[in-house]
Amino acid sequence: MNNNIGNGISRQDAYEKVRGVAGYTHDVVLPGMLHSCVLRSPYAHAKVVSIDTTAAEALPGVYAVGTYKNTSSRLFNASGVMAFLAPDLNPVLDQVIFTDCPRYIGDEIAGIAAETEEIAQHALRLIKVKYKKLPTVFDPLEALESNAPLLHPHISSCNTPGGVYTVNQGDVATGFQECDVVFEGKYKLPIQKQAQLETQAAVADFRRSGELIVYSSTQSTHPTRIILAHIFDMDQSKVRVLNPKYVGGAFGVRIGMSGKAEAIAAALSKLAGRPVQTVYSREEDFMASDSRHSGYVSVKLGAKKDGTFHALDIHAVLNTGAYTTYGIEVGIVLGNLATSVYRMPHIHYDGRVVYTNILTAGAFRGFGNPQGTFALEAAVDGIAKMLHKDPLELRLQNIVCDGDVWPLAYPCRASGLGECLSKAAKGIDWKQHGKFDAVGRFRRGIGISSGTHLCGTASSACAVLRLEFDGSLQIATGTSDIGTGNMTAFQQIAADLVGIPLERTYVMWSDTDNTPYDIGAHSSRCLYSIGLALEDASHKMKEKILDYAAEMLEESPKQLRVEQGVIRGGNREITVTELADHAHRREIQFVTRGFPRNNGFTATWHAVAADVEIDTYTGVVNVLKIVAAHDIGKAINPVSVEGQIEGGIVQGLGYALREEMTIQADGRPYNTSYHTYMLPTIGDIPEMEIQLVECPDPSGPLGAKGTGESGMVSTAAAIAAAVEDAIGVRPQEIPMTPERILKILKD
Amino acid sequence: MNNNIGNGISRQDAYEKVRGVAGYTHDVVLPGMLHSCVLRSPYAHAKVVSIDTTAAEALPGVYAVGTYKNTSSRLFNASGVMAFLAPDLNPVLDQVIFTDCPRYIGDEIAGIAAETEEIAQHALRLIKVKYKKLPTVFDPLEALESNAPLLHPHISSCNTPGGVYTVNQGDVATGFQECDVVFEGKYKLPIQKQAQLETQAAVADFRRSGELIVYSSTQSTHPTRIILAHIFDMDQSKVRVLNPKYVGGAFGVRIGMSGKAEAIAAALSKLAGRPVQTVYSREEDFMASDSRHSGYVSVKLGAKKDGTFHALDIHAVLNTGAYTTYGIEVGIVLGNLATSVYRMPHIHYDGRVVYTNILTAGAFRGFGNPQGTFALEAAVDGIAKMLHKDPLELRLQNIVCDGDVWPLAYPCRASGLGECLSKAAKGIDWKQHGKFDAVGRFRRGIGISSGTHLCGTASSACAVLRLEFDGSLQIATGTSDIGTGNMTAFQQIAADLVGIPLERTYVMWSDTDNTPYDIGAHSSRCLYSIGLALEDASHKMKEKILDYAAEMLEESPKQLRVEQGVIRGGNREITVTELADHAHRREIQFVTRGFPRNNGFTATWHAVAADVEIDTYTGVVNVLKIVAAHDIGKAINPVSVEGQIEGGIVQGLGYALREEMTIQADGRPYNTSYHTYMLPTIGDIPEMEIQLVECPDPSGPLGAKGTGESGMVSTAAAIAAAVEDAIGVRPQEIPMTPERILKILKD
Repeated sequence: MNNNIGNGISRQDAYEKVRGVAGYTHDVVLPGMLHSCVLRSPYAHAKVVSIDTTAAEALPGVYAVGTYKNTSSRLFNASGVMAFLAPDLNPVLDQVIFTDCPRYIGDEIAGIAAETEEIAQHALRLIKVKYKKLPTVFDPLEALESNAPLLHPHISSCNTPGGVYTVNQGDVATGFQECDVVFEGKYKLPIQKQAQLETQAAVADFRRSGELIVYSSTQSTHPTRIILAHIFDMDQSKVRVLNPKYVGGAFGVRIGMSGKAEAIAAALSKLAGRPVQTVYSREEDFMASDSRHSGYVSVKLGAKKDGTFHALDIHAVLNTGAYTTYGIEVGIVLGNLATSVYRMPHIHYDGRVVYTNILTAGAFRGFGNPQGTFALEAAVDGIAKMLHKDPLELRLQNIVCDGDVWPLAYPCRASGLGECLSKAAKGIDWKQHGKFDAVGRFRRGIGISSGTHLCGTASSACAVLRLEFDGSLQIATGTSDIGTGNMTAFQQIAADLVGIPLERTYVMWSDTDNTPYDIGAHSSRCLYSIGLALEDASHKMKEKILDYAAEMLEESPKQLRVEQGVIRGGNREITVTELADHAHRREIQFVTRGFPRNNGFTATWHAVAADVEIDTYTGVVNVLKIVAAHDIGKAINPVSVEGQIEGGIVQGLGYALREEMTIQADGRPYNTSYHTYMLPTIGDIPEMEIQLVECPDPSGPLGAKGTGESGMVSTAAAIAAAVEDAIGVRPQEIPMTPERILKILKD
Repeated sequence: MNNNIGNGISRQDAYEKVRGVAGYTHDVVLPGMLHSCVLRSPYAHAKVVSIDTTAAEALPGVYAVGTYKNTSSRLFNASGVMAFLAPDLNPVLDQVIFTDCPRYIGDEIAGIAAETEEIAQHALRLIKVKYKKLPTVFDPLEALESNAPLLHPHISSCNTPGGVYTVNQGDVATGFQECDVVFEGKYKLPIQKQAQLETQAAVADFRRSGELIVYSSTQSTHPTRIILAHIFDMDQSKVRVLNPKYVGGAFGVRIGMSGKAEAIAAALSKLAGRPVQTVYSREEDFMASDSRHSGYVSVKLGAKKDGTFHALDIHAVLNTGAYTTYGIEVGIVLGNLATSVYRMPHIHYDGRVVYTNILTAGAFRGFGNPQGTFALEAAVDGIAKMLHKDPLELRLQNIVCDGDVWPLAYPCRASGLGECLSKAAKGIDWKQHGKFDAVGRFRRGIGISSGTHLCGTASSACAVLRLEFDGSLQIATGTSDIGTGNMTAFQQIAADLVGIPLERTYVMWSDTDNTPYDIGAHSSRCLYSIGLALEDASHKMKEKILDYAAEMLEESPKQLRVEQGVIRGGNREITVTELADHAHRREIQFVTRGFPRNNGFTATWHAVAADVEIDTYTGVVNVLKIVAAHDIGKAINPVSVEGQIEGGIVQGLGYALREEMTIQADGRPYNTSYHTYMLPTIGDIPEMEIQLVECPDPSGPLGAKGTGESGMVSTAAAIAAAVEDAIGVRPQEIPMTPERILKILKD
């Protein structure tokens, strides 16, 4: 029956992407469309005293100049958090489209819409702004001090918009007293940027009829729609957001809005009365869209003499920059996941996100988990060292097992984690650990890290199947394919579960008008949550087909089966095409709506092992090999799954060794281009071995779990462990640049 | 409860149309879009001996040259008939995109896609074609002769693709023997052209991934999709057809495809690998898209001495031109409707449509009924004259009544026809009939006509309602608004039946990807068929809302009511917005699908009375006043209904007096522009009085019936009756041009 599920069939979007004919938001052209650019604050914190747009408005070819004076001043949150309204969740609304109080260098002051980008850029230079500079703060610890400048005094009397989030289990104070050894460490994490290929972009058509249509690179069209309806005080039904088929990478930076591209384009379109395209330059993309939270994570881990973990205390202070966006949720996920890998009676976590005058941090693949995992795994290795235990054995001894009590709201189903550790260790040749010579210029080391990630957020997932009159099948879901291949996986699931050939299925790309509500492509949720909805819709469709066929063939539906588009039973057979045509001639169309059988999360598990070689002369860490073993439940498309994990490893390698946005003294980010921001290149990619562990998850579709983020989570921790194995010291800060490695070696 | 139903609220599309910002297919621009033009046959019947496109292809800027050699040769039918697959209906497939055997002047030989229209036009002149001329026939009676040239010998051994369609009731031969008087007449009908404002157009994007997206001015996106999928041998699910919101008039000429614009654009896009826009010039629109069937209708009506009608025999020979398209169905509707206005024991009809070497005839508002009605009503007036009876009284004596036996498949519900006749007569001051002086230069006369039209084709109608999380309502139907106002009526129905304000509803414009299957905006069916589906979906939505509210308010659903977005019951109230937000936070979305409670037709009824003045010196017929009384069941929006009827009257007036495409000796149509084709202008429009008769139809939504076509049906007959009253002779040919009137006066 499963011709496609489990097979690594080619991505259905591959042809267009390889041929260069795939269309992105950058490519959208509408009749009469204007181009835009944005005036951004040169100060990290200031008050606009006056703004004069007269000269800009007078320039021929300029159709609109938007500022805080003439555009919506409704407060919003550019992340998707506004759309994910759990009963008790009230997102922090602290952003406006154009501000009169910039809070970081790059904050949006004004926008221009003009016939050409050149005219818009020219007009931008004609805007006269007088600023009054305000005091600034860039470090989150400093921002917590009582005399620190307040960023949002009208919203919050302190710089921690979400207060303190805690996780508690047992009593850590007593717990640590009962421990034989206690390890403590404090780790500093950098600003990492998604640096996705397609910069933030939107084309908005604010029609005079009161409708707003937005082509966007968002990874969550429906939430984007909700946010735009809020900003412009419109009915959601009159706002349409769609991917113009493709999205050029996302990694979290486009959940909700693509920076503010949608809101800027819409505000300018409303003023100009014509469609407006807003495309961020690479510099704007770096400086003015969400990044990964930098900050500090302290960890205290206590164990018994035999190695049994007993108490864990984690503190996180995360720098969310000028606005909250997803900050609060990132702190929550960090705490929940860092406390759910190892079994422990006593657990405490407290995390806070802090406003500072730098660019905003928000969602980024892993969503707080890489930060927490980096610290936690250092502590695990620290305990191993203190007890002279093998780090692998210590992990196997302490990892959570099926049915364990843990702080999370979903049941602990961790069947595959032990196997992941064993496979990763085997792949990296673990017996070499601690055995490399510590002499000569080049030092080798290997390290390992356990990890988990959540997958899910099934909320509101829905899939609609429509059998066309020729027997082909339309699959509609409200999610995007941001490059991960989920659309192909959807085709595999629907084709096999309904019983038609894959090439006769077609997936609709996300468009709020033509797809059911969905919160988007993130949280490693597409395959899991939408997959569940699709499973349900497919079963219902198959049932409809068989019921109809049973009447046609005068058989019981139970006697019939449908495979590869052919329905067989008794001595007769008909094709799904014949059946669909027959039904069409009788005015019957088969449409099914499917929903997930659960609305929760589940956990994925993985272990990553790294083999590194350090040049002690230059400080360069050369990763020789990464082995990653992932328990993904069931690989619907093994090639896609491996691709996801490989991509995550490379991004994790960048996080470990190269990537960091640094902030200069005035608050200006230094590296805002591919030239200055050190992404891994092809030459940095090590040998990678991906091991898929398939422990079917009973809550997932066909046992599957999502793996969009998990590849990223533990890579930096594993590399740091290998570095420690090589040079005897655990780096407490990433990226582990040559400079920092040399400093460690020198110390 | 009904704040909107029954009110003549403004059309929701009015603002954009009046401001000139409404977007049509002509306005669509896609990235890299090419422009196209079509090489059309200069001969009415020929064989392409050779075609050389080398020079055209070599011209810089030319991306594709399509001919019969390199484009799909699958036979199709450009009308929607391919999509309306009743169990026993097999449409005649006799068209290809580009032909090597042109059958009329204008037939498509080749197409060019180029950077600009100018380059395309230049390239067109570089194509070298050698034709071998074939014998031609232009008159349908001649085409029936045994030695006539055959147009489609490979499909049909005669020029009547559908054979002979008959309607039979009783035995006419016996019937006529039993009559006291028998009237016989033969009428010649012209080619009328829809002449809608927006010429036929499409923009096709045939993606290399194997998907086809077509923006089109079609009035039936879903059927267009089915036809395109057939032509290009693709899965329907991979073809998307959408109105780019607005359609610039239709009148039947865009059911199925817009001429062949969609197929031409798609074929060229497939060759070029880029999007292609095909926009017909006004000349092409006239010469190469469907028109109203010209032809001959003979009628024989027999009555008893007391005026009781007893036998009716009608013969129709319709000229369908070079291809069948809707020809067969037009002949069927003509016969069915002309035999269902008057009660009669003996009825016979036979109709045939005939191929000739002129432009194709197809669907046009009224769909055969104006032709049949013109002949039938002449016969009724003929009997009145023979029996010296008042034509109004004779009609009232013989019209069908509720429950009468008739040839149609749906029950006779004719409650309003008598009232229509009385009101039209009263409005025109009927007592003057036959009393005007027959002296002097100017002669006045008044006449009346009864009429019916079918409304329905509910087949596959469906409406989907989605309550957004802010309490606004999305209405999705697969139909288009071709200018008739049905979208506004849908909003009125949904708003009132669900219980929310009209401005909080939003209607999706037709797009096969985002709307349920529907056969389109034609057959006077939108308000009736989709209205029924919407009624069902609205009731279901209201039920969902009240059930949810009942839980929130802890009341029984039966105690609650929802009006204007507020749910009340007991002592509490909540808004639909609060309810939707509450549900959203619990991951519940309200979506309902509604279907018509019947899949059939119903009849609308009307009477039209005309008051004319004839200048016997010039032969000009000046219509002084038209009174039209229409039984439309229930006027959902009386202003829109009156507008529809007025538009129909004006088009009927053109049919009666001015409009005719004439064919020259070689088969070339003479009038292919607004300059030469005599549409009525503002100066020709008479005083019009519209009387709405509301006899609720139990089969319709809220008792309503559709009235898209009925205004057109009887106008010509009423004017001809008035002319007869004025000059004593019934014209047997329309349009009643000055030349023809002078000839009658001279004879």
